[in-house]
Amino acid sequence: MEILAAVREHPPLTHCITNSVVTNFTANALLAMGATPAMVDIVSEAGPFATVASATLINLGTPTPEQQQASREAAVAVTAAGTPWVLDPVAIGALPVRTALAHELLELRPTAIRGNASEIIALAGAGSGGRGVDAVDTPDAALSAATTLARASGSVIAVSGAVDLVTDGLTMIRIANGDALLTRVTGGGCALGAVMAASLAAGRALEISPLECVAAAALSYAIAAERAAAVASRPGSFAVAFLDAIDAIGESELRGRANVWEQTA
Amino acid sequence: MEILAAVREHPPLTHCITNSVVTNFTANALLAMGATPAMVDIVSEAGPFATVASATLINLGTPTPEQQQASREAAVAVTAAGTPWVLDPVAIGALPVRTALAHELLELRPTAIRGNASEIIALAGAGSGGRGVDAVDTPDAALSAATTLARASGSVIAVSGAVDLVTDGLTMIRIANGDALLTRVTGGGCALGAVMAASLAAGRALEISPLECVAAAALSYAIAAERAAAVASRPGSFAVAFLDAIDAIGESELRGRANVWEQTA
Amino acid sequence: MEILAAVREHPPLTHCITNSVVTNFTANALLAMGATPAMVDIVSEAGPFATVASATLINLGTPTPEQQQASREAAVAVTAAGTPWVLDPVAIGALPVRTALAHELLELRPTAIRGNASEIIALAGAGSGGRGVDAVDTPDAALSAATTLARASGSVIAVSGAVDLVTDGLTMIRIANGDALLTRVTGGGCALGAVMAASLAAGRALEISPLECVAAAALSYAIAAERAAAVASRPGSFAVAFLDAIDAIGESELRGRANVWEQTA
Repeated sequence: MEILAAVREHPPLTHCITNSVVTNFTANALLAMGATPAMVDIVSEAGPFATVASATLINLGTPTPEQQQASREAAVAVTAAGTPWVLDPVAIGALPVRTALAHELLELRPTAIRGNASEIIALAGAGSGGRGVDAVDTPDAALSAATTLARASGSVIAVSGAVDLVTDGLTMIRIANGDALLTRVTGGGCALGAVMAASLAAGRALEISPLECVAAAALSYAIAAERAAAVASRPGSFAVAFLDAIDAIGESELRGRANVWEQTA
Repeated sequence: MEILAAVREHPPLTHCITNSVVTNFTANALLAMGATPAMVDIVSEAGPFATVASATLINLGTPTPEQQQASREAAVAVTAAGTPWVLDPVAIGALPVRTALAHELLELRPTAIRGNASEIIALAGAGSGGRGVDAVDTPDAALSAATTLARASGSVIAVSGAVDLVTDGLTMIRIANGDALLTRVTGGGCALGAVMAASLAAGRALEISPLECVAAAALSYAIAAERAAAVASRPGSFAVAFLDAIDAIGESELRGRANVWEQTA
Repeated sequence: MEILAAVREHPPLTHCITNSVVTNFTANALLAMGATPAMVDIVSEAGPFATVASATLINLGTPTPEQQQASREAAVAVTAAGTPWVLDPVAIGALPVRTALAHELLELRPTAIRGNASEIIALAGAGSGGRGVDAVDTPDAALSAATTLARASGSVIAVSGAVDLVTDGLTMIRIANGDALLTRVTGGGCALGAVMAASLAAGRALEISPLECVAAAALSYAIAAERAAAVASRPGSFAVAFLDAIDAIGESELRGRANVWEQTA
């Protein structure tokens, strides 16, 4: 829970290579939580910038050739620098370009991987992916794929859904917070990947484990959605209220609303 | 009017290749109406994805070389698959790259074409286009161009303006709903093309004609604008209220507010 | 102050080549102020379009190879046509591609250059740039760099910060309006570059100097932020209120709230 305060006190420079649909919403979500976004996604800049940023997100939602190359550059740079980074393998499975790129980036062992159930199952090699950006599998169906993937890659795996799962392959955290309205705002999942990157940066300085950083990000994001849903019942006004809620949320609210289980294998 | 319910009950997977200015608003408009957006616009993915999607939109607002090729790929794929698709020839006329591409895609006979008066006149070969994205012609000036274009292409033609026109070359539908505030939100026209694609997908399953699907989309969109304008008088809050209105609108409201004339040649 | 009315009466066609994070917000800010945005950023179209537009913005936030080439094309075209144009050298300094491009475009003598303190210092060759998109220098630290740059380039230089500076190398205008919430909405600075371009177009017709046009744009933008902050205290709702405020703001409000000093060397 200290992560929230740490981000606000020392804004982590959060580098995002992300898809054209959600860049604006992602940057605004980072600003709302107190982080500093920087969307540097071109060749010859993404690599150098990743080495000075505090964390990097690579989201494969619209991977143009330029972004593919920038993503490789950034992933190599963060690996060399030891900076935390998050991979979001959007809509992999059936779509060939991003699927190949996701498997290639996986070799570089992201600090965390965020996706819906179908994406995590596809990345683990256990399924053929979802329906565009929508999962066709439930998070529970992704349970064993997430554990297998976490153990094989050393990454923390976060599966978004009605109940979020976060695991490092040993401990499984279930977060039963959130609101379905978040699935009716584009970028609701994608921006979470950026929020996780910022939390990993802040948590690293505090020597908090990646598992806890990712779970804290998912929890505060989900509770912000609950808070927004309390004042807005339709998707346009919900999106606005959600950004306000990310800004407004405090530690005591997180503690009071958290609906989280932890289980160790 | 059943289309509204059909989209909500069986969300059509709506594939969009659209411009960088409006991707976010377009995806949010589709989500608000109950459809599932997927913005797959890169080479080697746009074609395969178009064959599994329920409908495709090709919008030429910012046609990078990558998007041009992805558009060709998708248009060929939907033609082979028999999937409905919408062409939005944004700002054609004076701008050479998109004008050539629009004429090339026209050969593949889109299910529907949506544009402002100047764009439709330019596509019909009867004028030189507008002033950037703004029409310099009124919809009525586009009347004969729309009819000619519909007959030549077999496409349903939708001309957006103070009074919208929708025609298949035989029947001309005039929709005198809407609100001028929609022209002060970027993507107000572009997102309608996506809403038309989703409506064509839903209507196809119900064996409703493309003409009626496109007119129903234009009507519900225009009435959502009226509903939003009733609660918001400035463009920032109007855009938010408009997404809420797309979500909220019901069949009885459509029937009550519709201001539509139909005329058959 | 007449500029505000002039933009609303004769909407200047404002051509933007800008970054993928802020295209939507930028277009909406232009629409809110009454201008007509057109985001034409591809090769073979950006140049021809720049010659028919009333003003052009070149923002280097996400300069893909396509945008780099389109920017060169547009800058050459506006120079030949004598159209006012604005350069926004986003995050230059450490990032090599945009830094080289900014210096190349500077040779073509933009009508105005807008940036934060670190960007202006870097462009003047007096520092190494900021931290991503954030300034690490205060506007006052950029004072001499702005004056030097204005004299060398003939451009009006606008430095955004808690107090905005606008100078033509002789006169220095300080604008102590605005609200810090604007720094928590992505595109808060970038959209101002577009607003300056539209103001230069309108002011040119009225034979108002570029210095006054740029200062008027910065002032009305900052006062719109104050107006928005009076009704919204968090970033999501602030962004919506800010667009509404740009639309709502009037001349008497500008006069009443302006907190401006002018000093001539």
